[in-house]
Amino acid sequence: MRNRQVVLASRPRGPVKESDFRMVEAEVPALQEGELLTRVHFLSLDPYMRARMDDARSYAAAQRLGEVMIGGTVAEVLESRNPRFRPGDKVVGMAGWQEYQVTDGSMLRKIDTAAIPASAHLGCVGMPGVTAWYGLTRIGKPRPGETVLVSAAAGAVGSVVGQLARILGCRAVGIAGGKAKCEHVVGELGFDACLDHKAASFPEDLRAATEKGVDVLFENVGGAVLDAALSRMNPFGRVAVCGLIAGYDGQDIALRNVRAILVDRLLVQGFIVSDHPQVWPQALQELAAHVAAGRIRWRETVAEGLESAPRAFIGMLRGENLGKQLVRLVREAAAAGPRGGAPSPG
Amino acid sequence: MRNRQVVLASRPRGPVKESDFRMVEAEVPALQEGELLTRVHFLSLDPYMRARMDDARSYAAAQRLGEVMIGGTVAEVLESRNPRFRPGDKVVGMAGWQEYQVTDGSMLRKIDTAAIPASAHLGCVGMPGVTAWYGLTRIGKPRPGETVLVSAAAGAVGSVVGQLARILGCRAVGIAGGKAKCEHVVGELGFDACLDHKAASFPEDLRAATEKGVDVLFENVGGAVLDAALSRMNPFGRVAVCGLIAGYDGQDIALRNVRAILVDRLLVQGFIVSDHPQVWPQALQELAAHVAAGRIRWRETVAEGLESAPRAFIGMLRGENLGKQLVRLVREAAAAGPRGGAPSPG
Repeated sequence: MRNRQVVLASRPRGPVKESDFRMVEAEVPALQEGELLTRVHFLSLDPYMRARMDDARSYAAAQRLGEVMIGGTVAEVLESRNPRFRPGDKVVGMAGWQEYQVTDGSMLRKIDTAAIPASAHLGCVGMPGVTAWYGLTRIGKPRPGETVLVSAAAGAVGSVVGQLARILGCRAVGIAGGKAKCEHVVGELGFDACLDHKAASFPEDLRAATEKGVDVLFENVGGAVLDAALSRMNPFGRVAVCGLIAGYDGQDIALRNVRAILVDRLLVQGFIVSDHPQVWPQALQELAAHVAAGRIRWRETVAEGLESAPRAFIGMLRGENLGKQLVRLVREAAAAGPRGGAPSPG
Repeated sequence: MRNRQVVLASRPRGPVKESDFRMVEAEVPALQEGELLTRVHFLSLDPYMRARMDDARSYAAAQRLGEVMIGGTVAEVLESRNPRFRPGDKVVGMAGWQEYQVTDGSMLRKIDTAAIPASAHLGCVGMPGVTAWYGLTRIGKPRPGETVLVSAAAGAVGSVVGQLARILGCRAVGIAGGKAKCEHVVGELGFDACLDHKAASFPEDLRAATEKGVDVLFENVGGAVLDAALSRMNPFGRVAVCGLIAGYDGQDIALRNVRAILVDRLLVQGFIVSDHPQVWPQALQELAAHVAAGRIRWRETVAEGLESAPRAFIGMLRGENLGKQLVRLVREAAAAGPRGGAPSPG
């Protein structure tokens, strides 16, 4: 059986190019006792992968050249010599950018796709959802009536941050790139406001939308947008630093408003959700309940076929996606219907 | 009775000039029931006063033009119509840059100058000491064996930070401006190392002195020195932002190494010690015990006479002082003998 894989061909210099990836084929090995074979249905594309492509020191080891690209996946068990898994089981894991995986199952988590669609286990009831949950509740610690500001608000993480903030009784204000995304964030996701950072009126829009200041900032972007947000913080505000996508290609994302940290006695904390495995069960349970009750909605952008992954990834880094960016590897796999809209083509 | 006072004459544009201050004279009013008259022995000069001279938004209201400059003081009670105070009592308060003050006593704290010299109540057993204690123990939370790095290590706050870190079983590394300060910090205060940020070899010196990385950074300066320090942080390091003196005259102190906050999951927290009155009793008690036991040593730079305050303040902002910068207003008042050296002239 042939297993198509996308490997890292070269480390990007500046923006990622399709030629930084290479498609290869490998044999699927025979199963040993205790192993199982899975077929990937959905591959998750996430900003953290960009950092892994560099060899700069990061929180995770750099991806090796020639190695299959890392990535979260939903897969189906095809064969099993492991008593914990049976053919037909759906599992979340880290199979990466490939069609099949043989593992011992130790890193796999069985999921129930009856209540929550398979693809959502890579989104608002998966790593991005737990990321939102952790940064908001454990670092941001918002109190009812406070204002929560989140950048990249139309993305997989940001969209959950704002909806959780609303559930917690807060005012949720998003920042996103472009009018369409802002309309989606307010109209479909129910944020109180969303500001287009590409608009000339962004500074005034931000001021108007945060009249009482900002108590919690959930930062995914960095750079000028972060400086603008810091200027709106209330005393004793909390800033959860989740991502700095504005600097992933080596851009200068200097933070100029350092004075705000002192003057407003801010708490600024970087975090990586994988450092906190102990919160995942509670977070996933709460997120699943919110999804089941319709309190959390989401959108997906789905690219078709493994070969489309590099282009979809590059598009995501450019902000071309709306909501969770996925790659569907099996044509019959059903992506989650977004409540209120069909999945956009990748 | 004539009361000489130094008032704010103009808001500085760039570096503070002596002409930004003006000496005036006022009558000392007669005491009302409940009031007392104090004579200032020592005036404390501290970096926070620089921020108060601007009218930019800050954590404290800007100093008004023509108003007596704010400042912590040790004073002696001359007359009292308040049953809590008797002539001869020594008190710590905020009389500001003047010779006499009439108050209702509500903001005064009686001190014992037998065990702790009067001037030290403005230094390591006063506001700067509590600042060091709070930032280190409540934000930095160092564990034995960890490395604590502190900038402006020869200053009133930094010198206590490093000595407390040593008491807590940590490696204490200072950063200071110039060879003489660094020698003092290591030789007299007992830090494990101190690095001259003006030296060409500073980056390598910093690396060599923090071979195991930095777990706690106590930041008083900002700018390039902060960026250099951030590059040495260990994962899950804590950064207590106490001051940003490099930017007080409007200089660009952009933080370029924002990535470290995310990659190393740092906690960066600004603080102002006056926000935390509940810790003062415990902190002062511990600091006094350390001083009495000889575990905390200090140095003072003492300027003579109220008229010398502006020049001494400007010198402090330039880093010309060693240790706590004071102004002695009463010639017979005894400054604390530094253990191991005489007070430098201001």
